[in-house]
Amino acid sequence: MEKMIEELLKEFRQGSKRAAARIISLIENEAPEGKEILRVLYKESGRSYIVGITGPAGAGKSTLTDALVKLMRHRGYRVGVVAVDPTSPFTGGALLGDRVRMSDLTLDPGVFIRSMASRGHLGGLSWAARDALVVLDAFGCDYILVETVGAGQSQVDVVKVADTVVLVTVPGLGDDIQAAKAGIMEIGDIFVVNKADRGDADQVVRYLQSILEQQTKTEGWLPPVIKTVAWRGEGVEELLDAVERHRSFLVNSGHLDPLRKMRLKEEIIERVERLIFARLKKEVRMDGVLEEVYSRQLDPLSAAEALVGEIIPQAGSAGRK
Amino acid sequence: MEKMIEELLKEFRQGSKRAAARIISLIENEAPEGKEILRVLYKESGRSYIVGITGPAGAGKSTLTDALVKLMRHRGYRVGVVAVDPTSPFTGGALLGDRVRMSDLTLDPGVFIRSMASRGHLGGLSWAARDALVVLDAFGCDYILVETVGAGQSQVDVVKVADTVVLVTVPGLGDDIQAAKAGIMEIGDIFVVNKADRGDADQVVRYLQSILEQQTKTEGWLPPVIKTVAWRGEGVEELLDAVERHRSFLVNSGHLDPLRKMRLKEEIIERVERLIFARLKKEVRMDGVLEEVYSRQLDPLSAAEALVGEIIPQAGSAGRK
Repeated sequence: MEKMIEELLKEFRQGSKRAAARIISLIENEAPEGKEILRVLYKESGRSYIVGITGPAGAGKSTLTDALVKLMRHRGYRVGVVAVDPTSPFTGGALLGDRVRMSDLTLDPGVFIRSMASRGHLGGLSWAARDALVVLDAFGCDYILVETVGAGQSQVDVVKVADTVVLVTVPGLGDDIQAAKAGIMEIGDIFVVNKADRGDADQVVRYLQSILEQQTKTEGWLPPVIKTVAWRGEGVEELLDAVERHRSFLVNSGHLDPLRKMRLKEEIIERVERLIFARLKKEVRMDGVLEEVYSRQLDPLSAAEALVGEIIPQAGSAGRK
Repeated sequence: MEKMIEELLKEFRQGSKRAAARIISLIENEAPEGKEILRVLYKESGRSYIVGITGPAGAGKSTLTDALVKLMRHRGYRVGVVAVDPTSPFTGGALLGDRVRMSDLTLDPGVFIRSMASRGHLGGLSWAARDALVVLDAFGCDYILVETVGAGQSQVDVVKVADTVVLVTVPGLGDDIQAAKAGIMEIGDIFVVNKADRGDADQVVRYLQSILEQQTKTEGWLPPVIKTVAWRGEGVEELLDAVERHRSFLVNSGHLDPLRKMRLKEEIIERVERLIFARLKKEVRMDGVLEEVYSRQLDPLSAAEALVGEIIPQAGSAGRK
């Protein structure tokens, strides 16, 4: 087992995409070897810049990602892509179809592309996807693009991993207003109006700009709104320039380190919760308590306090009156 | 303090809406009295049937809820409404405006309406909103309607509290397809195509039906698709009939108890996590560990394992290799 890990790490460090893919699969399958390798690779990571690309289905995110990867390659960067597909049975096929377009890129040794399942039916980022970023980082990627289908959880989750969040929309989708309503706009560092050759793209741009003037995600950064026609590469240069400008801004203004530290802190807390949760599921006798609560002899909060008391002896008492 | 609680509970039990409102405010403000009262009221709850009403902004959920409440009153039910507004500054006003339409209902002693803030910018259900359901349940409501703006988290959360989930859409919104893609359709027990006098409502109905035939939320229940024109009350009778049919189905098929128990179990686990999280924030010295992780001397998983070991002495070792 240890030998297999060593062999795999050796190949990985020699730049083998096959080895990288295998490591990510081990992590996806929750194999103990995956966890082991991840501990090692984490210490070799930290140089990648992570760009989240999100927006509603049909906004052309895959095509835009594709174009962006090509341009990044042209500028000499090593690039990783993690595309998060929702696990919904209705979309699996379509998204895999999208990914096929990228096949010419997969032959490029400087590009690593991986589609990964989402967590839950609303498309949140799985732990495996987050761990894959560490692998690609240690693999030497200058940029890692995380593409998520924008609906619900994955849009919140993309903020947890990305240094720059690109929010993609299209004219005539009718939900530009909805996006604003749901507060989704607050997560974007750069806005893209893709398929700008259709409908009234300028109107969408003006609309987005008018909202952006009223809010601030990061002090000192007014998110630019960029028009693209991704399938023929229009505006992609401007988009990459904007990404690099945002990156420089974060570095020069001293925002990047605190941002990354905050993300890391939240990740550690989430991991702690997850470990405790696993323990809870395994060790705590829930059934008796559940019956008591269901029959209204006990309320849920008191039940939770008692359970916490069971796993952390002195904690229960603090919670009680 | 104790006297204030007793007085408030007395008024509440006499059916005072003012007392109910005050109790919910105490809970919202996280006052210790609110928690105390909740423990008492939980034991008096358990008779309400909870209907979640969700869907995209602009689908006319408020108007539909309004119409449904009136019809429920007509059928002699006592009704509670919890409307969850997203906290986004862009929408607060508009949604409050919607609620004003309900003012004639607020004079009815058999109707209790409360707007509550959402959790986070994507509109998740706050703990206060979930606790308010217990208060309205103990208040003697036969039905409680939970109206959430459908985008992201609140749609996931509505499943955590509702016995029947009504998913509202409208023709021409262009995101019927998106809804399906995001897997949102999987949460609905009843589908409503509102504003059915506009656009091609029948096409939306057929589209929804074709998808519904391919999936099952609950074995033995094919979600009906109902056309409504809520502002003039059309289709609302059919909607309420469908809600009652779904309720009978859940009761007669033996699904309701396991469903509610599962929800309760998840609630208790969430509460446990929340208590532990609060403890973690308060007691654990995170900064040293964070610096170690940020400088790549330690990986996040090992850091989390060490932290768990600090709060649960014997747990850390189990997680380590």
